[in-house]
Amino acid sequence: MMKVEVAPHGSTLALVDESGGSLRFHAIWLRDNAWDAATRAPGNGQRLIALRDIPPDTRIVSAVVHGDRVTVHFAPEHKHVDYDIAWLQAHAYDRVVSPAAGWTSDTVTPWDGGLMNSVPIGNFEDVKSRPAALRDWLFQLRRYGFGKLIGGPIEPGALLQVGQLFGYVRETNYGVFFEVRTEVNPTNLAYTGLGLQAHTDNPYRDPVPTMQILYCLENSAQGGENMVVDGFKAALRLKAENPAWFDLLTQHCARFEYAGEAGVCLRARRPMIELAPDGELVAIRFNNRSTAAITDVPFAQMADYYAAYRRLGEIIDDPAMEVTFKLEPGECFIVDNTRVLHARKAYSGAGKRWLQGCYPDKDGLLSTLAALERDQALAKIAA
Amino acid sequence: MMKVEVAPHGSTLALVDESGGSLRFHAIWLRDNAWDAATRAPGNGQRLIALRDIPPDTRIVSAVVHGDRVTVHFAPEHKHVDYDIAWLQAHAYDRVVSPAAGWTSDTVTPWDGGLMNSVPIGNFEDVKSRPAALRDWLFQLRRYGFGKLIGGPIEPGALLQVGQLFGYVRETNYGVFFEVRTEVNPTNLAYTGLGLQAHTDNPYRDPVPTMQILYCLENSAQGGENMVVDGFKAALRLKAENPAWFDLLTQHCARFEYAGEAGVCLRARRPMIELAPDGELVAIRFNNRSTAAITDVPFAQMADYYAAYRRLGEIIDDPAMEVTFKLEPGECFIVDNTRVLHARKAYSGAGKRWLQGCYPDKDGLLSTLAALERDQALAKIAA
Repeated sequence: MMKVEVAPHGSTLALVDESGGSLRFHAIWLRDNAWDAATRAPGNGQRLIALRDIPPDTRIVSAVVHGDRVTVHFAPEHKHVDYDIAWLQAHAYDRVVSPAAGWTSDTVTPWDGGLMNSVPIGNFEDVKSRPAALRDWLFQLRRYGFGKLIGGPIEPGALLQVGQLFGYVRETNYGVFFEVRTEVNPTNLAYTGLGLQAHTDNPYRDPVPTMQILYCLENSAQGGENMVVDGFKAALRLKAENPAWFDLLTQHCARFEYAGEAGVCLRARRPMIELAPDGELVAIRFNNRSTAAITDVPFAQMADYYAAYRRLGEIIDDPAMEVTFKLEPGECFIVDNTRVLHARKAYSGAGKRWLQGCYPDKDGLLSTLAALERDQALAKIAA
Repeated sequence: MMKVEVAPHGSTLALVDESGGSLRFHAIWLRDNAWDAATRAPGNGQRLIALRDIPPDTRIVSAVVHGDRVTVHFAPEHKHVDYDIAWLQAHAYDRVVSPAAGWTSDTVTPWDGGLMNSVPIGNFEDVKSRPAALRDWLFQLRRYGFGKLIGGPIEPGALLQVGQLFGYVRETNYGVFFEVRTEVNPTNLAYTGLGLQAHTDNPYRDPVPTMQILYCLENSAQGGENMVVDGFKAALRLKAENPAWFDLLTQHCARFEYAGEAGVCLRARRPMIELAPDGELVAIRFNNRSTAAITDVPFAQMADYYAAYRRLGEIIDDPAMEVTFKLEPGECFIVDNTRVLHARKAYSGAGKRWLQGCYPDKDGLLSTLAALERDQALAKIAA
């Protein structure tokens, strides 16, 4: 049976389990996270009050455990609030862990070329018709930042049907979607037959497009294979090899620019390896074509910065890192463009290569997946 | 006359002006930033080579100034590259400045309630028809993160015409645009007559919507004024008052959540005050309704974190910070949702209040403005 102890003056309480393990919570945190109907809107869970509505001298008068709940009495409001102990345990912040820079969420698994044998693949009709299939496929997209979808319609614009499976497509100066095939007088090197080094798209945009779909309509040319590389894995390899170089790419902003069309002049200033303030690895930006002059690295560190940038590129180019495949018409792949780099090999000769691309938002994907997971959990409880 | 000095072994060169001031550049940086036709595509400026194509032992053999240009001879490629000296000066990184955390770009001016007398206002027809008027209005939107547009059509969907003036609107689960008026059974408190504390929209989305348009179609209700507060100014006030509290809100992630509709479960983990790795103030997230349990602050700092969070809210609520106005039909305001908070006062009684909102992308706005500024600069040179 869980016990509860209130600290002198009521500034905190501690949940103490049978083994003596203790989790402390502050009075102000508990009050702010109350779920009673006067604090949170019952329908949508939005908080009805602001912190300004909670007295600064909020303290705990008493706390009582009954079964799996604890009731806390707060002064000076003289308010009683009930908490689910499991919810408190799941949201405890009384921890000593302070992970090293470069940690990743437990929903994410870095990968290298070994993923070749277990590429996440969904079937268009299956994913469209069965929520469980959609959930499983999105789960893998979240985990690997990459997946394929096969068996889709072979018609222009079909990629938008893929986007609609989980969210919303972001329109840009390239359109709602764009054509990737050889053009005369191309405005972008993507629209030539040249091979492209593995890159993330549009680092000159802030925020960058968070997901990308590349959908194949025709692929009879020689070459033109696609490959993908996990930028998180590459960053972690760099960190393992040379932590100081990893730090240089996280602590200084690079600059990116694209001004290849009339009326367009896109610029961004962000690091190649982006960390959250507590060190979580949150984004990779890597694109030789659109890297502008890097001017935010101090002179004394520029030579090392360039050495780090070069080494990151070498790791990205290492064949052991890549998963390579050739799309058939009606197939597409999706990448998390904040994490996974994509590339294509040069193509030429007889035949054609015609892909279409678009940028769906990752927040829609993660939201759809979380809602499907919530439905699954509720169904299990009901069963 | 500018002189150039090459360091022993050719690892760097220095541009030395008449007063003896020196700007150093590394050989590898110069080579990477060459603008010859083999390095950069002449049409669109995209880099044709990657860092892997530049020898790691790149060094400067010699450098010669002629007029406003300097020609650099690189080994081992034995390549000669011409640089515009003014371009080099503009992109110099040999500086000692290391600004304090919380610095802002020189295109940005923080403001408080004093802006009331000089709110940036554009006229719809003027901005639509004259590039110079559009440029001036966008310039102010970039500077203040806020502006009004008046004289627009009074018809549903007119806000999309405003978005098309400079960019692309981001569709979300709320639609391409959304209605802000009193609803029966609202899914979001925004759709009630309640007053709302100043907030940024959708902090539970990552990335957040970067701009917001709120467009008035009807506003005969009592109350319902809008107000805006500069989140950058609020953060800088907090820093001036209590640097340790500012640091707490920058160094730890908050959590945000919205799960008020079927199929929607949006969550994000980002700091309330976001800095670039070198301390530039880049974003504010503040929204009492959708702040979830904050679990990424260590126990020992949680009490101070809450004190800092409370104080930031008090600063935001300070009437000296706010610009207040009431929109007439056909008028709208635009905010940079990564910076400027907006609020509305409660409304009720006879009459109606009907606004429509949408989220255009800031990258499109900044790109359109930069292209207009480039056109203006070229016109001046041609004149």
